[in-house]
Amino acid sequence: MSKIFDTSHSTSIEIYPTIELCRLSCGEYGSLWPKPQNLKFSNRNLFVFNPMQITIEHSPSFDNHISRMVIDTFRTNLEHDYRNCSKCKDKRMRVKIHTESDTTVLDWNTDESYSLKIETLKDNAEVEITSKTIFGARHGLETLSQLMTSYPEEDNSICLAVIKGVTIEDRPFYSHRGLLLDTSRNYLSIATIKKHIRAMATSKMNFLHWHITDAQSFPMETPSVPNMTRYGAYSPSAIYKYEDIKHLIQYGLYHGVRVFLEMDAPAHAGYGWQWGPEAGLGDLTVCLNHQPWRQACIQPPCGQLNPSNHRVYDVLQDIYADIIKLLPSSSIIHMGGDELFIPCWNSTEQIIRYIGNKPRSMETFLDLWSEFQNEALKRYDKVVGNKNSPVILWTSHLTDPQYVERYLNKDRYIIQTWVPNTDNLPEELMKLGYKLIISTKNAWYLDHGFWGTTEYYDWRKVYDNQISNNKLVLGGEVCMWGEYVDDASVLTRTWPRAAAAAERLWSNPVTSSNQADARFYSQRQRLISRGIDADAVGPRWCYLNEGQCLS
Amino acid sequence: MSKIFDTSHSTSIEIYPTIELCRLSCGEYGSLWPKPQNLKFSNRNLFVFNPMQITIEHSPSFDNHISRMVIDTFRTNLEHDYRNCSKCKDKRMRVKIHTESDTTVLDWNTDESYSLKIETLKDNAEVEITSKTIFGARHGLETLSQLMTSYPEEDNSICLAVIKGVTIEDRPFYSHRGLLLDTSRNYLSIATIKKHIRAMATSKMNFLHWHITDAQSFPMETPSVPNMTRYGAYSPSAIYKYEDIKHLIQYGLYHGVRVFLEMDAPAHAGYGWQWGPEAGLGDLTVCLNHQPWRQACIQPPCGQLNPSNHRVYDVLQDIYADIIKLLPSSSIIHMGGDELFIPCWNSTEQIIRYIGNKPRSMETFLDLWSEFQNEALKRYDKVVGNKNSPVILWTSHLTDPQYVERYLNKDRYIIQTWVPNTDNLPEELMKLGYKLIISTKNAWYLDHGFWGTTEYYDWRKVYDNQISNNKLVLGGEVCMWGEYVDDASVLTRTWPRAAAAAERLWSNPVTSSNQADARFYSQRQRLISRGIDADAVGPRWCYLNEGQCLS
Repeated sequence: MSKIFDTSHSTSIEIYPTIELCRLSCGEYGSLWPKPQNLKFSNRNLFVFNPMQITIEHSPSFDNHISRMVIDTFRTNLEHDYRNCSKCKDKRMRVKIHTESDTTVLDWNTDESYSLKIETLKDNAEVEITSKTIFGARHGLETLSQLMTSYPEEDNSICLAVIKGVTIEDRPFYSHRGLLLDTSRNYLSIATIKKHIRAMATSKMNFLHWHITDAQSFPMETPSVPNMTRYGAYSPSAIYKYEDIKHLIQYGLYHGVRVFLEMDAPAHAGYGWQWGPEAGLGDLTVCLNHQPWRQACIQPPCGQLNPSNHRVYDVLQDIYADIIKLLPSSSIIHMGGDELFIPCWNSTEQIIRYIGNKPRSMETFLDLWSEFQNEALKRYDKVVGNKNSPVILWTSHLTDPQYVERYLNKDRYIIQTWVPNTDNLPEELMKLGYKLIISTKNAWYLDHGFWGTTEYYDWRKVYDNQISNNKLVLGGEVCMWGEYVDDASVLTRTWPRAAAAAERLWSNPVTSSNQADARFYSQRQRLISRGIDADAVGPRWCYLNEGQCLS
Repeated sequence: MSKIFDTSHSTSIEIYPTIELCRLSCGEYGSLWPKPQNLKFSNRNLFVFNPMQITIEHSPSFDNHISRMVIDTFRTNLEHDYRNCSKCKDKRMRVKIHTESDTTVLDWNTDESYSLKIETLKDNAEVEITSKTIFGARHGLETLSQLMTSYPEEDNSICLAVIKGVTIEDRPFYSHRGLLLDTSRNYLSIATIKKHIRAMATSKMNFLHWHITDAQSFPMETPSVPNMTRYGAYSPSAIYKYEDIKHLIQYGLYHGVRVFLEMDAPAHAGYGWQWGPEAGLGDLTVCLNHQPWRQACIQPPCGQLNPSNHRVYDVLQDIYADIIKLLPSSSIIHMGGDELFIPCWNSTEQIIRYIGNKPRSMETFLDLWSEFQNEALKRYDKVVGNKNSPVILWTSHLTDPQYVERYLNKDRYIIQTWVPNTDNLPEELMKLGYKLIISTKNAWYLDHGFWGTTEYYDWRKVYDNQISNNKLVLGGEVCMWGEYVDDASVLTRTWPRAAAAAERLWSNPVTSSNQADARFYSQRQRLISRGIDADAVGPRWCYLNEGQCLS
């Protein structure tokens, strides 16, 4: 197989020593992922320079820690291959970043746009990045890093090459570009979660939805309620220490990723909550460890919070207070709210007593559930200190269009839908005015294919899943539920498929995965080169022979 | 979650500091995988001893290198957790191995049976392993290692614990317990292949089917024909050096694994074979790089050897000669022979000329294919130096029951079937007297679920796939085709599912995966503890709560 590649897209034919160099300027978008909204190459040729000779200025006199870490990550990503660049040792790059605001708030209102310009003079590539926020600037640097790659010289040294001339104006289509990780069914190490954050940054994703607890285990240290991990962690080594969570949230911001926590309730709550009777608080959770489990839940070991015991709210309030102390300036929480299994409550004596003379009907239990949700929200607001921070909930009986307005305030709640793309629930909720985050069950549930009769969604299905562009849709999330993954495979199971959703959410292209084929292979290689175990996309032959494997 | 476990199977209740210790003597088979044919616990309690105080004698005065390496691996597997065992520092284990024959031949006639007995006196566990061959002895040591696990003492030191009394008589049900790896679609590193071999040894699998070449790339160094990798490797670093292959074959034997090579022909041969015209030999391969590929093959880049050019046989003979030099005493080869795409030959001018006036019918092309196969076999026999070494072929048109006896000698060819379990082809071939290796397509194709409309086979489907116990069935193989895996995920994609097939092939239990559930979780943990990235089986909660997740 030839090791020489050429590209007919160049103004003059160049011969490249690696395929990655060739791909930098191939096609309309080089090997950029996600593809930018506007791009114009003014000179597709390559400028080879010394990676030790990059200077970066961030004005106006930017000196916040996020900026320093962002620039540090940019350099780290470039230097992994570097070796003694001698031939081009005096060729330089100068990067000037201008960022308007010094805000460090990353939420759905954050302006993530940027513009990027490269012009190359004789011995110098001049790069200008302009943005409203540091998060836009970070995207600009990510794009810049994708316009470069290693350049092996004949003397066995390795320099860097960059596209000589390009202008980019870019902004995300959706403001929520998320990934859900589940650390309850199986514990994931801090190192693994950090790799996910780096992979997200590489694909310009910005929300990490941390489904940190569930019925199976409670691995989150809550200093106000130490019993939660004492009773709920799989082992003393499978606990997220409070300081580690804080560190991860900060680590996320350095990578343009907002980490937010889901405290799922009232269902999906079991282990961690067993200590109520022992502490004299009564049953905090009910149905836990029920067998046969099919009678009381959708998955062992069952477990739902006990709405007839108001001590539950005191514990929740303590947990919320611990969470709030972890969060950066603006607070976002996910309160779960999915898959309440009414037969569990309806077979629990103290709950039946609690509802008293009311009929044991669906509506009665929805009212009870709503009472739980309202009280949980009240406790949350109390510790936050205001009544307007956004709360996310999964779709459920409570969000059924016929009930939702009775139960959930559309100015407070953002609803995360997890129905298949054939279901018009998202449309109906939008008609009622609810803001949405979309997790299309039959395209973006990355755990599917490994259990029951579910189907695996390859990257093309993930990519080709178009969601509504109604303004009420904040964006979408791919979900990596944790039943069948742990540290051994969660990275390859998630990546590069999550990156396919990333381009859908950033660029929302009218084109399909077929047009993204070569760039997607490149993005996978980029993840690998950055130390992220990303799965193979196809035979390497298909990567080396662009477009030849399409049917 | 409680960290204390007890087992009601003990003669007296013991409290164990880890679940792994408890599982050593749980149920009928402890945490053994695959389960032995006959096992009797005489004392289920644990003896805690010093792993530095294991003596191993192998008689009669065994001093071959395989024995030394087998014992070394046994020790390595035990010592990974060891820390300063002080409390039990004078408690010992003495292992006496008696092996009848000093043969180092591992093939379908090798006697792999062993017996194992543990008796514990006050300060000493006495272990006796008896076997016909070193490979049986290795199985005995593997079983012994699975009767032990780390024992953390209160003083923070870590010793080993072993079951005090047990007697095992064990032998495999099938003599071929195989795994196919494909290194052509994507290259796999030597380190990855070694991990597969160690995982196979941990599950008593014994045949590694190395599908080393295909149309996409030819990564195998063949010193007699250096052009093969020069034209066929994906890159200079994606080549299996001749010495490395030799080393891997030897490494396999040290782990009780026979590595055998597949040189797939005449289809699935493209890259690596392009140099014919340049060297004045004419076209060795045809249809290579044909587009649209659907017209000439089932997968790009197409490519089939050219039966009208007899120089092909000279090259094949050189390659065979290189292969033979690599092999241990008895030679086994897989000649592929699957998926010949007749429209390719039938649209190639020189082949049409070659068949001359014969009708361009199915039968004519099968005759041509058979001519190819006969000549290839002749060249192979020439370099082997005899005419009776076994050759394996995939099922194809050539093995169709209506043709097979005309084309393939049942005393020479072993046929590997890859049809679904609903197909009665294996039965029909057995009626005709052919020996078989079974790769049930709808259970043992581990690449399924990731492309097209194929379905993923979870470990239960792999386990529950019963194959014929006719004497003509040598055994079976799980196949890890390489289109959608490379070093990043090939281990988690293969393991622990391949281990499920391992128990099916070793023990051929009448019971189903439900009865193997807890032991299978244990085997997965064992693979992880030995450094093999094996996928999660389910939530860790299910591992900690035996049998509670079954529906």
